[in-house]
Amino acid sequence: MTPPARGDHEARRRDVSEAVRRVLADRGFGGLTLRAVAAELGASTGLLTHYFPHKRALVAHALEVLDRQAAERHRPATEAAAGARGLPVLRAALLDILPLDAEGAAANRIWVGSWDAALGDAELTAGHAERYRRARRRMAGLCAEAQELGELPADRPAEELAARAQSFALGLVVQALFAPGEFPPERQRVLLDGFLADLAAGREHVRGGTG
Amino acid sequence: MTPPARGDHEARRRDVSEAVRRVLADRGFGGLTLRAVAAELGASTGLLTHYFPHKRALVAHALEVLDRQAAERHRPATEAAAGARGLPVLRAALLDILPLDAEGAAANRIWVGSWDAALGDAELTAGHAERYRRARRRMAGLCAEAQELGELPADRPAEELAARAQSFALGLVVQALFAPGEFPPERQRVLLDGFLADLAAGREHVRGGTG
Repeated sequence: MTPPARGDHEARRRDVSEAVRRVLADRGFGGLTLRAVAAELGASTGLLTHYFPHKRALVAHALEVLDRQAAERHRPATEAAAGARGLPVLRAALLDILPLDAEGAAANRIWVGSWDAALGDAELTAGHAERYRRARRRMAGLCAEAQELGELPADRPAEELAARAQSFALGLVVQALFAPGEFPPERQRVLLDGFLADLAAGREHVRGGTG
Repeated sequence: MTPPARGDHEARRRDVSEAVRRVLADRGFGGLTLRAVAAELGASTGLLTHYFPHKRALVAHALEVLDRQAAERHRPATEAAAGARGLPVLRAALLDILPLDAEGAAANRIWVGSWDAALGDAELTAGHAERYRRARRRMAGLCAEAQELGELPADRPAEELAARAQSFALGLVVQALFAPGEFPPERQRVLLDGFLADLAAGREHVRGGTG
């Protein structure tokens, strides 16, 4: 690989993105270094600094690559849900998050791996916070629809139901990644449906303990 | 620091553990290298290989340090709950997990950061899986107690309720770490109490969507 010439730049950038994706898939964010990406490309580390002047730029780019992949992966589900409203769409959105197949597990493994790198940097933390805020806002819209349709209780804020749903899904991802044998796809669905059934059946907050 | 002499070994090991803890607190698992720990100790990287022949040994030791810290941190809550049973103890155990103060946030930031390193190594993955399995088993015992006491519905396995509770708590930890301003301690408690109220009120599984 030679230094980027005008016109070639976009093609080179795609090569770099592909190399980043492969390094992430093989080694996770802990193994994402300029040196590893350069080796994957057969390029020098010095050359890579044309694209990424520092480690954070590389991590930020990796997160963009993942965003695009997630958007690609979820498009069919989103299109299938076109016209649907409320609880079934919320359920589809939560199923989209879970590692229900090899591709979903690989993508989640990389996302979960990004949390260490992201939490170590204020700008990356803000980026992740914004990603999750957008996802919660979308889910809150679906919860509000489900409330209008009488599928979810209307006596609590849709934002609260959405935050609970996202918490549940993210934690289930983590459990399933560490113990895929204990959390096969069918069990993940059972757990999600149990969670949603309780969300639909719930009425009032319990007041227990000392908090 | 000089090479470990007999008798000194335990004291040295404590120094090393303390240095590991400081590196984790400052930089997370992504920054945990033999070089960083050596610098923290004012020792050579070569010397550190007496303790950690490879990176995985260092990561495994870091996880042990975290286990001990978590046990220390949770002892007061565990003692306060002595004699209590069922749902209030489950609630206390879940509150123990959440980042409700600066210490809890720092500890959780390190744990979440360990997931990338752990998922990249089969032995470390197995260790984490066992940690979470133990925690779920303990929670399942508390759920079974709560079922006997009539605090939780008896029509579903305690293991299922426990897996849902742990998923919810872990995911809430992640949300709160990325957006502490949106998830202050009081909101985390409200979300947890809402989750537990629904767990207590839930009766049957919803059958929705296509899964």
